[in-house]
Amino acid sequence: MKRAPLVVLGERSSWERFVERGLGKVVAAYFIASTKVSTIPGMSLAGATPELTLYTPALDVEYLVLGKPRRMNVVPTTPEGIPTPALLTRVALGLAKIPYVVVDCGSYVDPLIPHVDIGGRVVGGRIDVEDALPEGAAPELFENSRTLGRMLGSEDLLLVLGESMPGGTTTAMAIMESLGYRATGRVSSAFPRNPHELKKAVLEKAVARVGKSLPLRDVFEAVTHFGDPLHVSLAGFLAGALEAGSRVLLAGGTQMCSVLAIARSMEVDLRGRVAIGTTRWVVKDASSDILGLVRDIAPEVPVVYVDVELSKAPYSGLRAYEEGFVKEGVGAGGTILISVLTRDLSEDELLEAVYEEYGRIVGNGRES
Amino acid sequence: MKRAPLVVLGERSSWERFVERGLGKVVAAYFIASTKVSTIPGMSLAGATPELTLYTPALDVEYLVLGKPRRMNVVPTTPEGIPTPALLTRVALGLAKIPYVVVDCGSYVDPLIPHVDIGGRVVGGRIDVEDALPEGAAPELFENSRTLGRMLGSEDLLLVLGESMPGGTTTAMAIMESLGYRATGRVSSAFPRNPHELKKAVLEKAVARVGKSLPLRDVFEAVTHFGDPLHVSLAGFLAGALEAGSRVLLAGGTQMCSVLAIARSMEVDLRGRVAIGTTRWVVKDASSDILGLVRDIAPEVPVVYVDVELSKAPYSGLRAYEEGFVKEGVGAGGTILISVLTRDLSEDELLEAVYEEYGRIVGNGRES
Repeated sequence: MKRAPLVVLGERSSWERFVERGLGKVVAAYFIASTKVSTIPGMSLAGATPELTLYTPALDVEYLVLGKPRRMNVVPTTPEGIPTPALLTRVALGLAKIPYVVVDCGSYVDPLIPHVDIGGRVVGGRIDVEDALPEGAAPELFENSRTLGRMLGSEDLLLVLGESMPGGTTTAMAIMESLGYRATGRVSSAFPRNPHELKKAVLEKAVARVGKSLPLRDVFEAVTHFGDPLHVSLAGFLAGALEAGSRVLLAGGTQMCSVLAIARSMEVDLRGRVAIGTTRWVVKDASSDILGLVRDIAPEVPVVYVDVELSKAPYSGLRAYEEGFVKEGVGAGGTILISVLTRDLSEDELLEAVYEEYGRIVGNGRES
Repeated sequence: MKRAPLVVLGERSSWERFVERGLGKVVAAYFIASTKVSTIPGMSLAGATPELTLYTPALDVEYLVLGKPRRMNVVPTTPEGIPTPALLTRVALGLAKIPYVVVDCGSYVDPLIPHVDIGGRVVGGRIDVEDALPEGAAPELFENSRTLGRMLGSEDLLLVLGESMPGGTTTAMAIMESLGYRATGRVSSAFPRNPHELKKAVLEKAVARVGKSLPLRDVFEAVTHFGDPLHVSLAGFLAGALEAGSRVLLAGGTQMCSVLAIARSMEVDLRGRVAIGTTRWVVKDASSDILGLVRDIAPEVPVVYVDVELSKAPYSGLRAYEEGFVKEGVGAGGTILISVLTRDLSEDELLEAVYEEYGRIVGNGRES
């Protein structure tokens, strides 16, 4: 069967350089954290109530590793049956047999699976009313993650870097804005109707609270006021992995643009060594602008996705992805991309495995 | 230059099966733990005082990752200048660019580098006077490590598994004896003069304390009474990695025989998928019997080492390895083996890098 088609956007030559060094060795790392921004009502889809969004990252990686959440006995879907994107990641990891680690850089609860702890359970603050991080935490998260990136990085290795943190597009937007990039109205959302006004209001309150004129020159100061524990950790891991000679596939949506922004302000060389692997749902989303963000921040970074769709899925919970729900997360798009590239998977092989896994987690037969 | 020579002992066909599946993908994991057995005076060389042996595993991996211990500002050598075997591991990892993780399954202190925590800081008890582990800890360590082995394992991957735990040969001996293997007088030591009588006395006290006739049929019961947090965790990781289709190189000395013994009692299939990678100093040690232990426990597992020697080293601290000090630890032998195999290193390339690193850590020029 024909391999599922890839779509490469942005600098094609960078992508060619990225893949020509080989795909023989791949390791993935999934970072989780929490930001209390996700508890602002209307901000995040990833949890049955705003408070429960704080548990989602831990439940996501427990499900990823064990096939079911462990801390709470729940089905990893919304009440309407829309599954966590970790479902796609789990399926892709299983098909491609990619070794992986889980990294906790600030989850509200400890995930009950083996994981690396970076930093010390510092949950991100609600940036509209308080700083994101205590003084000194941002550089510490960056440095610890950089060390981990160096441990896992090596010359012929490709590292896939995913994340789970509800509320993350808002803090990603705030980080980019604080570093001088226009990001308001350009980040994605797990809702079909992107709550741009709510996100903008959070940023405006945060800017008023901090009372400094933007852009800030000190990237750690920007992250401390406007960020979260996640993106600075991802940037540190990226920096360390690149120092060790690795290539890094940033597996995520518009949030990954804030990782590029942090790395850029540290003058990390990205060309031919970094790509964004995401989903069609992010790229096609009319309410956000990943390509514009990349063009403004790091135009040498290509954006790549596998062109699969769930519109013919036998479950409405999966078809919801085509209606704009969820879109991306837990490294889904990038992990699918690498699994397709390394195992020459066809669209049918991938979709069948997704349908089977969905059937397993919801415990029933196909609807149609 | 000629590749440094390998010596394959035991079942050569198993080793051929082991390597014929390729060495393109390697990931290493270094497990650390503590057992209070190391605080019995005369038991362990790995620490300036018996109490300080509890800190050695954390300092070892801090040095491995960062190039110097972090928790304490010490040079990673004995007072006489004999270096930790982590020096050899660090050099081999640097030459071969192997991605690696550190796993804490019961270190007395938290290592100040990114690491996976398995279990909850349960240090092994002094088995002569108390149980090694609380009820339930042994199966939990096994299962958590097995999960990690599954996360990192994959079909075409080779996992290198090393350890650091002073006192470990004594608990390894006790585990093997409790499972019905003759191990007294056959395990190695970091001392040139192996304290067999002391180890035997610890075992006898432990057997009298427990008051059950050996062998025990329940492997977790054996580990709970006579073991430590380390070996059961290594066995769990081994089991999980093999389930995921990996091969595993047990990088260590006679301690790894107790890992084989635990795996054997769980009927794990080892042939062609597991090898021991160790050092010449362990194999040539007249006071221990790694080949005899392997023959008794799992004769299908080959024992392999790189035939390098430090007798011409320009530092007495390194030459001490030829006088029977240290011998092995922190996965040194196996990591050297994989670095030689994957990068075709010559003996001179390896030794020069070792001398250079030793010079760096002791901060002076060559003695001769």
